[in-house]
Amino acid sequence: MASSVRKDLPLGFRWAAVKAGIKASGRPDVAIAVADKPCPAAVMFTRNQVVAAPIIVGRENIAASTGLVKAIVVNAGNANCATGQTGIDAARATCTEAAKIFGCNANEVFPSSTGIIGVPLPVEKLIAALPSAADALENRPSYAEDFANAIMTTDTKLKVAQGAIEHDGKTVHLFGAAKGAGMIGPQLGPPHATMLVYLFTDLDISAADLRMVLEPAVDASFNSISVDGDTSTNDTLLLLASGASNVAWSTASADLRNAFTGELQNICNELAHAIIDDGEGVTHVVTLDITGARNDAEAKTIARSIAHSPLCKTAWSSADPNWGRLLAAAGYSGVEFDPTHVTVTIGNLPVFENGMRSPAFDEAATHAIMQQREYTIAMNMGQGQGKCRFLTCDLTVEYVHINADYST
Amino acid sequence: MASSVRKDLPLGFRWAAVKAGIKASGRPDVAIAVADKPCPAAVMFTRNQVVAAPIIVGRENIAASTGLVKAIVVNAGNANCATGQTGIDAARATCTEAAKIFGCNANEVFPSSTGIIGVPLPVEKLIAALPSAADALENRPSYAEDFANAIMTTDTKLKVAQGAIEHDGKTVHLFGAAKGAGMIGPQLGPPHATMLVYLFTDLDISAADLRMVLEPAVDASFNSISVDGDTSTNDTLLLLASGASNVAWSTASADLRNAFTGELQNICNELAHAIIDDGEGVTHVVTLDITGARNDAEAKTIARSIAHSPLCKTAWSSADPNWGRLLAAAGYSGVEFDPTHVTVTIGNLPVFENGMRSPAFDEAATHAIMQQREYTIAMNMGQGQGKCRFLTCDLTVEYVHINADYST
Repeated sequence: MASSVRKDLPLGFRWAAVKAGIKASGRPDVAIAVADKPCPAAVMFTRNQVVAAPIIVGRENIAASTGLVKAIVVNAGNANCATGQTGIDAARATCTEAAKIFGCNANEVFPSSTGIIGVPLPVEKLIAALPSAADALENRPSYAEDFANAIMTTDTKLKVAQGAIEHDGKTVHLFGAAKGAGMIGPQLGPPHATMLVYLFTDLDISAADLRMVLEPAVDASFNSISVDGDTSTNDTLLLLASGASNVAWSTASADLRNAFTGELQNICNELAHAIIDDGEGVTHVVTLDITGARNDAEAKTIARSIAHSPLCKTAWSSADPNWGRLLAAAGYSGVEFDPTHVTVTIGNLPVFENGMRSPAFDEAATHAIMQQREYTIAMNMGQGQGKCRFLTCDLTVEYVHINADYST
Repeated sequence: MASSVRKDLPLGFRWAAVKAGIKASGRPDVAIAVADKPCPAAVMFTRNQVVAAPIIVGRENIAASTGLVKAIVVNAGNANCATGQTGIDAARATCTEAAKIFGCNANEVFPSSTGIIGVPLPVEKLIAALPSAADALENRPSYAEDFANAIMTTDTKLKVAQGAIEHDGKTVHLFGAAKGAGMIGPQLGPPHATMLVYLFTDLDISAADLRMVLEPAVDASFNSISVDGDTSTNDTLLLLASGASNVAWSTASADLRNAFTGELQNICNELAHAIIDDGEGVTHVVTLDITGARNDAEAKTIARSIAHSPLCKTAWSSADPNWGRLLAAAGYSGVEFDPTHVTVTIGNLPVFENGMRSPAFDEAATHAIMQQREYTIAMNMGQGQGKCRFLTCDLTVEYVHINADYST
């Protein structure tokens, strides 16, 4: 996880951020990314039934533009969600104005919002900020970093990741920026916030191929993490491909394709990890390694049940090797299994086997493992080949303080 | 909710409690209830795939005795769960010894355990305590109260409820005792811990009819509550009918039947409410009144999603009218609906309608309602006739403290 953006960004994009006065803090709150020309996009939105206005408009735009995006306009500080027709009109007005400034169709503008739900978006502030943002655009690390900074809300750390692959003297670049610390239990689906992830590459690839490459990478990363299980109304992930590397997917070798998908997976994993690591009140990052399930879906159901169990999460906060809570959470997940076939290890130390505490269980040693900031809990269901790696975190007093903070 | 047991208990039962030295506190930890003769029983166990030894043995016993139970033997302080074959043997030995003392078959003894998971039950202490428990049995309020006290673990309040119906100069009594404060998200199913509920009546009724009467009462009460959504491995509910009132269900009028099922529902509701009210760290008891869903099952799914949302629960802890979190939780429940048809009220005050914040929304007034210990959040999905009333609570710093408390 880089602390700031390095050189060698994807070609064909420019970034900028400005202050529009939407965040109460007065910090930069409008982030813009503009491609040199409308380029193929793959997008995944939250599966929440309640979605923010920019998601409704973004979905329409992507469909109307046949998967092409030229400009991304993100505001932080207001989610423009549950704001009725006024909210939808605001998102549309943003696209219309941005299109004039960035020289494209309104449906080639991709709007995003993150922040408080239910409060009307001060769209006039957003629109007023666009000309100065346009003037500021650059393809330079500090500008990409500004973009990543401006999309943050309760985040405490910048979340960016970069990668590159070399091919025949040419370089394909990847860059990603993410935000999200609470309301993190993404369930992203194909075209359907408040995790926002923007990925940029200069690979030459069609929108259809881009979607095919993106979905497995997201399923194994952003769709396999949870802070609190609260799937947001605004979760959005967008991948743009400028083609400026002049390396074409359509004629790429299997090796080149594998190299690209591997690098994309790395970047998604890095950003997903960064989101959990910066989760609200988090003091422990826990990897749940579920194996031996009847299938991958059941493994994920078990992982989610453990990841969302308040009793498991509070035990992790105090490094308590209370493995009974792990079994109980797996047991009420809805998945059928025989507990006598299940084995559990924490940091590779034996915990549970043959339906009871492992004879080799060492409470002090297990507690010591769990005092580390990161460790793995492995559960083998003893049924089949299904598996899932799921990244989650503890539930702390600080989480409650952050989310209960309210004053009249 | 009575603070202690009144006179007029069901006839045909006696209760007692003794100290066996299983609770670390040294308080009474073995509770016994004995019927004058083996009597019809209806039982519902947790649907968790991981179940405690006494549930395995209790399920076998009820099947073998064709639904008859003479004695209930409960220990608190140790759940006898995830204890392997040794744990099952311990539960069986308890039944065998209790049968000798109480003069019945071993399969007419119903064992229960609650407490820590994964630690071997000190069964010799439990068995050694049985003779003195047998000597102490009485059909008197203070003995029934002792029973209710001894089954408690982290509970801070006694949980009992009583009722009676008059019929032709005869009286049918009902008495119930419950325990449970954490790991509360019961999903009780027909014969398949750590909510324990024992209900006693002197109605004359068959085991089959008893089950039929019990299930709807449980679905509307214990299966519609949640502290933390953690369904225990030991949840058990047992209803015994001694017949000693000489009022027979088989010849009862519709009015009498309605009076009995109504009283049973009241007692289940009272005990279920008592469990939430005494939930770990609870400062607010919230009734979720979901209506207008496509069916009752979907209404319950939406209620559970809200009841288990850490963001909703933390907002309740500070009386924060953050209604966006309610909508988001409904939206990720998996149930399909159109947010523009949804209305939300808090304590009858308008909050959300037509896809946006209600024009009449009064933040200060809503905050004031939410400062009360109990209030109702109503959500009408605008789709149909499906409904669910679900009782839940806030998530507080104290809950985290209680469940994270661990020292090496």
